[in-house]
Amino acid sequence: MSSARTISIFGATGSVGTSTLDLVRSNRDAYRVEVLTAHRDVDQLAALAKEFGAELAVVADESKLGDLQSALAGSQVEVAAGEGALVSAADREVDWTMAAIVGCAGLAPTMAALKRGKCVGLANKESLVSAGALMTDVAGKSGAHLLPVDSEHNAIFQSLAGSSIDDVRKITLTASGGPFRGRTRDELQSVTPEQAVAHPNWDMGAKISVDSATMMNKGLELIEAHYLFPVGLDNIEILVHPQSVIHSMVEYHDRSTIAQLGSPDMRIPIASALAWPQRMETDCAPLDLATIGQLDFMAPDEETFPATAMARAAISAGGARPAMLNAANEIAVAAFLDRKIGFLDITRVVDEVQQSLDCAAPASIEDVLAIDSEARKAATARTDLIAA
Amino acid sequence: MSSARTISIFGATGSVGTSTLDLVRSNRDAYRVEVLTAHRDVDQLAALAKEFGAELAVVADESKLGDLQSALAGSQVEVAAGEGALVSAADREVDWTMAAIVGCAGLAPTMAALKRGKCVGLANKESLVSAGALMTDVAGKSGAHLLPVDSEHNAIFQSLAGSSIDDVRKITLTASGGPFRGRTRDELQSVTPEQAVAHPNWDMGAKISVDSATMMNKGLELIEAHYLFPVGLDNIEILVHPQSVIHSMVEYHDRSTIAQLGSPDMRIPIASALAWPQRMETDCAPLDLATIGQLDFMAPDEETFPATAMARAAISAGGARPAMLNAANEIAVAAFLDRKIGFLDITRVVDEVQQSLDCAAPASIEDVLAIDSEARKAATARTDLIAA
Repeated sequence: MSSARTISIFGATGSVGTSTLDLVRSNRDAYRVEVLTAHRDVDQLAALAKEFGAELAVVADESKLGDLQSALAGSQVEVAAGEGALVSAADREVDWTMAAIVGCAGLAPTMAALKRGKCVGLANKESLVSAGALMTDVAGKSGAHLLPVDSEHNAIFQSLAGSSIDDVRKITLTASGGPFRGRTRDELQSVTPEQAVAHPNWDMGAKISVDSATMMNKGLELIEAHYLFPVGLDNIEILVHPQSVIHSMVEYHDRSTIAQLGSPDMRIPIASALAWPQRMETDCAPLDLATIGQLDFMAPDEETFPATAMARAAISAGGARPAMLNAANEIAVAAFLDRKIGFLDITRVVDEVQQSLDCAAPASIEDVLAIDSEARKAATARTDLIAA
Repeated sequence: MSSARTISIFGATGSVGTSTLDLVRSNRDAYRVEVLTAHRDVDQLAALAKEFGAELAVVADESKLGDLQSALAGSQVEVAAGEGALVSAADREVDWTMAAIVGCAGLAPTMAALKRGKCVGLANKESLVSAGALMTDVAGKSGAHLLPVDSEHNAIFQSLAGSSIDDVRKITLTASGGPFRGRTRDELQSVTPEQAVAHPNWDMGAKISVDSATMMNKGLELIEAHYLFPVGLDNIEILVHPQSVIHSMVEYHDRSTIAQLGSPDMRIPIASALAWPQRMETDCAPLDLATIGQLDFMAPDEETFPATAMARAAISAGGARPAMLNAANEIAVAAFLDRKIGFLDITRVVDEVQQSLDCAAPASIEDVLAIDSEARKAATARTDLIAA
């Protein structure tokens, strides 16, 4: 056990957290769990903390502290609650941290983990989309290894192994194209939330499914890729690949392209990050290309799906724009799911918020949170107006 | 110039040699040419030696020494001829050697280069097919880096970057399937040399084109892969992929698959080997998957094309079998191209020779050459019999 990797998992009860623990479960000797955190689900958190012998369990919602204490009474697990406790927990001495808290609540603990200069598995999109420059700056200074867990960014990370980022000519982010690939804007006018959440390849939550349908997920991933892999925005391209088997690619100056492929199982990229720079055994389904038979590729249709072009513009404009885009999109998607606005209104709202607000570049997490709040307010005003 | 990589190219006037020099031509400051060799083409050899300022030019055919001396008279280039001179030249102090001599003539100089413990770009199939155990043994002892130049093996090599061979679950060699993919054995009965040499993706010589049509090229590559990448024969699989865009793949135990892709230009894998572990700039065509549009995959049809199963059996049987398979195939393909035997007779002859001869495992290059000679004699006897 002396060579076991010590790990902390922020957002242990979500899908990334439970997948990570699932991998740890089948490789118990290789990992020792220090911290597990959850938003509100104290029962699952307590069960996991006991199962994995965690040193500390933290619930973000302070009102749940008593429940967590009761659930872990008699165990050896230390207990804490609240945002401050999350940040303190992220500052604990571990080899590897999974940053999988959803939303802006993940920013502060992720930043704290990055400051410690070890390995950080990054599943919290907001960290890079809204605070990319801050995050990579801290990681650069501390020497932390940012290990992306998103299948696309993990594929790029793996495809860069053994080579230098300076040797990269182009990064290609693949995109399924979502359930509405091939449709016209006229046809998208009246699509329903039910149609939008039916993603062809991955089983995902409603928000991410809608992002896939608008291709805003690819826009957000473009922003993430821009911060993770500094090859220049013009050298990051999006390629529609409906089967989502090739998760992304890197082309080098010698014109070799390296790609990572796999079955649609998020445990595969998580395993890659968890064991990095080594590899672990998993029981995920192997890739069977003979059975899949065919892979298709096509250029994205940015006329019909303007989200990726908007993300590109947000990166170019810089400053607060990426954070605003992310926040406005969350509000707009929620309004679409509530049937307050139409499908095409989603990107319209995001675009209008971006044009109307003029926030300075964030210099701290507090700035990011303020921008996020401003953009949400502005987006809510727009969606209310459309709904009225 | 002090940090220039010193290189020697054995087989400088062939397609691999000229492609290598083409890459050196556009990166002149990065390389200093020590040795260039040719089989008989002294005019081209002399021209290249002068252009690249080689220290030594060697012609394998001793009768051409005078011509080479005349061609290089007044230059600073040293001159030599004959097999012994090739081996001495391979023993010279350089950082990187390209072993691109065709056929068994390449064995001795390749072995000499491997003994020096530096980087050896391997384009000489016979080295690994006929003398794989000897070659990898020498490389293991000297610490030489074997850098495969064949597109498939180079793809595997690149896909292994940053990971350990122990982490590999499966290697997948892709195969175009050749011009007769999808045909039945009845339909193959009467195919002509002209039909066989029309390879869909790569512009190749007649011998290799026929090997592609019988899928013996994939059988030979399977043997090479077995020696280069010791993952166990059962863990090397062949996948038919008509577009030849994915050049091969490695699946790891975590179920991530890494692949190398590229345009059908042999300079891409050569550039990868030449600059390894760095990467160089080339002007090869970038991969454009949106234009290619579709990639197909299917299991190989080993009933119709038994060559890969025969290669697998040769590896399992071990000893002299791989060398015999290679030699018998060369004779059989030549007989087919001479219209002495039919297309289906090629693998039949190879199989019969393998069954009829019983040579011990080669312990030296001399043994390999003796096995090669025996198998050629036996194969010639068979093809003569069929032709009679």
